[in-house]
Amino acid sequence: MKIIKNVGDIKHLSNEKRAEGKKIAFVPTMGGLHLGHLSLIKIARENADFVIVSIFVNPAQFAPHEDFDTYPRNLEADSEMAVSSGADVIYAPNIKEMYPLGYSTYISVGKIGEVFDGEIRPHFFGGVATICTKLFIATRPDLVVFGQKDFQQTLVIKRLVKDLNLDIEILTGSTKRESNGLAMSSRNKKLSAEEKDQSSIVFLALEEAKKAIEAGERRRKIINAIMHKTLREETNIRIDYASSALSDNLETPEEFLAGEEIVLLIAVHLGKTRIIDNALVKIASSLAF
Amino acid sequence: MKIIKNVGDIKHLSNEKRAEGKKIAFVPTMGGLHLGHLSLIKIARENADFVIVSIFVNPAQFAPHEDFDTYPRNLEADSEMAVSSGADVIYAPNIKEMYPLGYSTYISVGKIGEVFDGEIRPHFFGGVATICTKLFIATRPDLVVFGQKDFQQTLVIKRLVKDLNLDIEILTGSTKRESNGLAMSSRNKKLSAEEKDQSSIVFLALEEAKKAIEAGERRRKIINAIMHKTLREETNIRIDYASSALSDNLETPEEFLAGEEIVLLIAVHLGKTRIIDNALVKIASSLAF
Repeated sequence: MKIIKNVGDIKHLSNEKRAEGKKIAFVPTMGGLHLGHLSLIKIARENADFVIVSIFVNPAQFAPHEDFDTYPRNLEADSEMAVSSGADVIYAPNIKEMYPLGYSTYISVGKIGEVFDGEIRPHFFGGVATICTKLFIATRPDLVVFGQKDFQQTLVIKRLVKDLNLDIEILTGSTKRESNGLAMSSRNKKLSAEEKDQSSIVFLALEEAKKAIEAGERRRKIINAIMHKTLREETNIRIDYASSALSDNLETPEEFLAGEEIVLLIAVHLGKTRIIDNALVKIASSLAF
Repeated sequence: MKIIKNVGDIKHLSNEKRAEGKKIAFVPTMGGLHLGHLSLIKIARENADFVIVSIFVNPAQFAPHEDFDTYPRNLEADSEMAVSSGADVIYAPNIKEMYPLGYSTYISVGKIGEVFDGEIRPHFFGGVATICTKLFIATRPDLVVFGQKDFQQTLVIKRLVKDLNLDIEILTGSTKRESNGLAMSSRNKKLSAEEKDQSSIVFLALEEAKKAIEAGERRRKIINAIMHKTLREETNIRIDYASSALSDNLETPEEFLAGEEIVLLIAVHLGKTRIIDNALVKIASSLAF
């Protein structure tokens, strides 16, 4: 198993593969790999000739009060899982090489990273955009795969890739779920058995809103209220947001229109663990009877 | 003469040259070429196999009240001058392709871009860092050449290149001057004959401070006062700053020490034209008598 820790080495390897005419896919992760990550690596494997998976817990996307120190880390086990799902090489950069003394460059992507999770975690998407730019420059992929669970993050990266004229195709893998509907996440390990039971309410809230939209509801406030009402059935939950928006730009009209795609976005705290989840619902184009 | 206007085309050309094993140099300009620019293109020519010169007046580095609209533009003449000095190709990107509708990514480099010119022009170095990142991604140079006149800009780009792990060597060409000492600049065309005469005071102020340092002056405030006093002899001048700092990080200690290199930095307005200039002075290492 090949683990590369140095930016010069991964650049060299990527250039070598490119010179051989290979299509390069890249899956950035913070480790703590679960079936969701592995499904993304499989998508990468199916769509490219050479697959790089990065494992790097990026301090720039955590606020001081957040869980950077306790975020799960197990490079050996994660690397083995990644390779068994199709990774050719693991890039696990050294934190001192990524952010040496004096480091001060920061990339912001504007409005798309300032709403929803960007409002709750003001440094988050800037931190994500910055590390992804550095990782993209180091690995020079033709293709990057993200999970739908991190819906807003993928929009941020699409904006970044377009704005910086990076030639990178972005694919999205569907959210993998536990049997009770909980979206898989590295942070789920922190949930107690009781909290894990309670967590099913998040998926349920998305389903309820989805049903209402499919039954004809178009008013954003009503759609949001359905999610809030469902979530509040679980008294142990604290809601950051439970909201709906247009899926391509996160704009929030009062009413959605036929033909539009809505994203339902939820972020809650359950005990000490933060859970995010989302669902996409397309409103059927109106037919001319 | 080859003028490329499309980001896809310049990427393709750069990749082609790289595949041929050629070393690529890049000189970013905003046009309005003068002997200063041409000397940078010659340095590029001497140090690489293929020379790309960009001509792009970057709106992101101008504030609304600044001179974006009146900045000199003459693509044909500029391109001819660049080619006659050694450019192989001109990259003159389309403004709508650089900043399409919805563009919102912005790169800041922190403290080094927030002092001196960054304090006076708060969006300037972020705009420079952003366009340079885009131009570097498009042209993928091994080598970039900047002029010493834009001293702080070069420090900003060095920070950016290091922080984003771009493998780019940065060379600096010395400042070219008119016979009266005025640093060459695209903006000098706007000076009246009288203002051009008066402008020599800027170079004189740098020389006076340099002499004082060479005669043993180490106190920053005194060094700055010498420049201010000289500049004030010209009543038509308005000073943005006339200051000294450590040349590698722009820090401003009360006293400079033996072995340190000082940069003297001046920005003034003469009528409607803004003039910047600088000089480097190395303090001799103290000898053990």
